[in-house]
Amino acid sequence: MLELHFAVPMAGAVLCTFNTRHDAAMVSFLLKHSGAKVFLVESNLLDVGRAALKRLADSDPAAALPVLLTISDDTDSDDYEDLVANAASEPFDIRWPASELDPISLNYTSGTTSRPKGVVYNHRGAYLNTIATVLAYDITVMPTYLWTVPMFHCNGWNLPWGVAMQGGTNVCLRHFTARVIFDSIARHGVTHMGGAPTVLNMIANAPPADRKPLPGPVRVMTGGAPPPPRVLFAVEELGFVVYHIYGLTETYGPATVCTWLPEWDALPAAERARLKARQGFQHIAMQGADVKDPGTMESVPCDGETVGEVMFRGNTVMSGYYRDLAATKESMAGGWLHTGDLAVRHPDGYIQVKDRAKDIIISGGENISSIEVESVIFSHPAVLEAAVVARPDHHWGETPCAFVKLKDGASATEAEIIGFCRDRLPHYMAPKTVVFEDLPKTSTGKTQKFVLRDKARAMGSLTKIASSKL
Amino acid sequence: MLELHFAVPMAGAVLCTFNTRHDAAMVSFLLKHSGAKVFLVESNLLDVGRAALKRLADSDPAAALPVLLTISDDTDSDDYEDLVANAASEPFDIRWPASELDPISLNYTSGTTSRPKGVVYNHRGAYLNTIATVLAYDITVMPTYLWTVPMFHCNGWNLPWGVAMQGGTNVCLRHFTARVIFDSIARHGVTHMGGAPTVLNMIANAPPADRKPLPGPVRVMTGGAPPPPRVLFAVEELGFVVYHIYGLTETYGPATVCTWLPEWDALPAAERARLKARQGFQHIAMQGADVKDPGTMESVPCDGETVGEVMFRGNTVMSGYYRDLAATKESMAGGWLHTGDLAVRHPDGYIQVKDRAKDIIISGGENISSIEVESVIFSHPAVLEAAVVARPDHHWGETPCAFVKLKDGASATEAEIIGFCRDRLPHYMAPKTVVFEDLPKTSTGKTQKFVLRDKARAMGSLTKIASSKL
Repeated sequence: MLELHFAVPMAGAVLCTFNTRHDAAMVSFLLKHSGAKVFLVESNLLDVGRAALKRLADSDPAAALPVLLTISDDTDSDDYEDLVANAASEPFDIRWPASELDPISLNYTSGTTSRPKGVVYNHRGAYLNTIATVLAYDITVMPTYLWTVPMFHCNGWNLPWGVAMQGGTNVCLRHFTARVIFDSIARHGVTHMGGAPTVLNMIANAPPADRKPLPGPVRVMTGGAPPPPRVLFAVEELGFVVYHIYGLTETYGPATVCTWLPEWDALPAAERARLKARQGFQHIAMQGADVKDPGTMESVPCDGETVGEVMFRGNTVMSGYYRDLAATKESMAGGWLHTGDLAVRHPDGYIQVKDRAKDIIISGGENISSIEVESVIFSHPAVLEAAVVARPDHHWGETPCAFVKLKDGASATEAEIIGFCRDRLPHYMAPKTVVFEDLPKTSTGKTQKFVLRDKARAMGSLTKIASSKL
Repeated sequence: MLELHFAVPMAGAVLCTFNTRHDAAMVSFLLKHSGAKVFLVESNLLDVGRAALKRLADSDPAAALPVLLTISDDTDSDDYEDLVANAASEPFDIRWPASELDPISLNYTSGTTSRPKGVVYNHRGAYLNTIATVLAYDITVMPTYLWTVPMFHCNGWNLPWGVAMQGGTNVCLRHFTARVIFDSIARHGVTHMGGAPTVLNMIANAPPADRKPLPGPVRVMTGGAPPPPRVLFAVEELGFVVYHIYGLTETYGPATVCTWLPEWDALPAAERARLKARQGFQHIAMQGADVKDPGTMESVPCDGETVGEVMFRGNTVMSGYYRDLAATKESMAGGWLHTGDLAVRHPDGYIQVKDRAKDIIISGGENISSIEVESVIFSHPAVLEAAVVARPDHHWGETPCAFVKLKDGASATEAEIIGFCRDRLPHYMAPKTVVFEDLPKTSTGKTQKFVLRDKARAMGSLTKIASSKL
C-alpha cells in the first residue's frame, strides 16, 4: 500500500484504499460506488475480496468487474510482484495530473452512522497537507517512522508521502502490541510515530517485561480524541514527546495542531495536560479553522465557554463527496466545512473540542461533554478505558452512562466510579450508570459510541433509581 | 523591514527592497524602474534617500515622486511608528491577492556585470519556497533565528515569513562581527542562522576572547559559494551544524540542498567536506533541477565529469524580470531557467557547481574551476580569504590569478602559495600569479570577481615569465 501511494497517482489513476476489516458486503458496495478498475488484494484478505467480487457480479451480471491483482508474502501467485518484476525499466511514462485539483485519492469515511461517504482528495491538497503534517510535528530530515496508523485511514495522515519527502525509513507492522512497538522502536531507532490515544494507552499500560528503553526521544502525533492526562503523563515519562493534532477524513487528516509554547514546559503536570488536550490552531496549509454558530455563521467569542461548531476552509478541505452532491453541499454550507464537532475558543485563541454534536449529553437542560467525563473516569487508577454516552431519561431527558473496562487484575464498583466523578466534577456531570465491559472499537482504535448509545438506549429510563440513589 | 514583509503584501502592494549600500544614483534608477509609490527609508540612510528623490525630480520634473516615509530609532520624526500608532485596530482590511500568481515582491539582482534586473516573486512561489527553506534546514517549531543574511537579499531567503510560520523569534543586528554573533547566540539561545561562507570564515577565525560556548547546536544555512573545507571543520568543531544550499535571486533564494546522509557522519573529515561542498538536489518545492547542455537541452550524464549548465523549472522560479521581456525570454529559453552556473552531476545524482560560466578559466584548452583552486588556497594555514580569476595570456589564453588576503600576523610568499597548490592540484590548475590584498565584497559578502577580473586583465600577459619560472 505504501508503494501504491506513488505508483497509482504516477499512473494517472486515483488511489482508493479500503479498511481491512470491511466484510464482503461493504467491499462490494465500495467497489461499485468507487467504480474501481483494478482491485489489489493481499493474500490474507483474498476470501473477502473474492466474495465481494462475486456479490458484485451477482447484483449486476452485465457490469464490468475490476481486474483482481493479488499481493502476497508468498512468492507464488503474486500478481503484484510479477508486474513489478516484468515492468520496463526507466524512463517511466509518468502521467502528471492535468490540473493540480485532479483527484489523487478516494477515502471512504468509517460510516458509523450512515452509509460511507467517498471523500475526494486532490493533488494540491495532498501535497499541502503532507507538508503541513511533516512540519506540525517536527519530522526533520531522515526520520524513521513507525506505522500504527493504517494507511487506509486518511492516507495514513499523508505520511507515505511525507516520510518519503524527508528521505525517511518506514517501519511497517501487520499487527502490533505494546511489546512489538517497543521492540520496533529499539531495533530500528524510531524517531516518529503516530498513534490514537488507544495506542498511547497500550504503551502506557505495557507490563515492564514488554518495555524497552527508547533509543532517543520518540515524537508521537496523536489525534482522534484528546490524550487523557494520565496516559499523557505515563508516555511522556517513558520518553515519548506527544503532539496533539485534530482533523477529519474531510480535511486530509490533520487540520489543527495544539502548538506548544516553550514556557508551558514549566507548568504543573495537570495544567500541561489540560493545555495539551486542546485542538489548537489550523496548520500552515489550512486557510481557516473557526468555531462558529452554524445558524448565523458568526464566530463564537474567545471566552472558553460559548460552544459552536468547528468549521474549516482552505486548500486542505476535500474536493467533495464522490457522487454525492447533496451531502457535499450540505457539509460545505456557507463556504465552510461543517465538522459536526462542538468546541469553544479560549482567550488565547486555541480551539478546544468539547464533543461530537451527537455525543453531547443534555441532562436537565445542561450540556455535558462526554469527553470531560471520560477524562475524569480515565484518571481512576483501576480504569483502562472508558466511554460515556447518553442514556434516555424520563425526568432529566438524558443522563451520562459510562462504559468502563478495568485493568487486568484491578477492581472497582459502580458506586466507586460514580463517587470518584462526583468528587471531581459538578454532580450533574457524574455518570448515573456504570457498565463494566470491553469497548467496541473501529479499526483505527476509536470507540464505536453508536454501539454503546444503542445499548444505553435499550436500558431505558433511570429516573426512579436516580432520584432515590443520587 | 521584517514587519513590512507582512504589512506590504497585506495592503495588496508589492514589496521592493533595496540594498542598503546602494548610492543615490542607483536608488534613483531603481525607484524609477520599480515605479515605487511609497519609499520607506531608515533615518541613517536618509541622505541617500533624499538625494535619490532629488535626482528623480531633476530628471523628470513632471513625474509623480514616491511618498517618503521615515523609519527611525529616535522617536521624533518617525513617520512609520506614527502610522502604526495611529492606525485603526482590527479588523484590518487585508487585500488578498486576486491570483496566487500575483506579485508579492520585487528583488533587484546585484548587477555586478550589467544593469540590475528586477526579479518578480509571486505569492505562490514565496509561500512554497518559504516552506522548502524551513524544511531544508530543519527549522522546527519555535526557533530563534539570528539574522546575518540581509532581508533585501532574496527576501532574506524567505525567512521573515518562515520564522513567523514556525512561531520563532528574530534576532536582528544592524552590524555584526564575530563577537556580536557569539554574544547574540549565547544571550538569545539562537537555534538557527544563515551565513555566507564569509560569515562562517569570520566565526572560524574569531579570536578566543570573542568566542562564547554555544547554548546548543546552532544550525547554519550557508550558500553563495561552497563552504571551504577548513572553514567547515572549524565551525563544526565549535558546535555549528552546516547545511549547504544553493540558489539564485531568480529562484527565490534556496533551490537545491546538499541532503546529508547519516552514514556520511562516519567518513573522514576531508571526505565529509568534499561531499558537503556539493549543491545536491532540488528542494521539495522546486519541480526540477538539472544540469544540461544549453545547446541541445539534453541532461549531462551522471559521471561527475561532463560539465553542463544548471537549470531550474517549477513553482519557485521567478515570474520574470520586471519590464524586461527580452531578458526574461532569454533566461527561460526552452522552458528552463538558465543559471549561468557550470556544474557536473555525480553518479549518486548530486549536482556540483564547478564555476560560474564567466568565472571558469580556460588555460591551454583545459577548463579550470576557480572554486577548486580557491578551495586549495584556502586550506593554507596563513590564508584568510582567496579568489581566483582568469588573467589573459598570449600563450595559454588564460592563466589562474589568485588574490589572497592573509590572516592578521601571518605571512606567505607568492612562490609558497603556488608551490602549495602544485602539491595538491594538477600543475596547470595552480595559479601563476598571486596578489596579496583585501578582496572587494558585495553587501551579502560575495567577492566581487568582476573587480578582480578587471585588475587581472590590466596586468597583461604572463607568458614569458611563466615559461621560464614554471
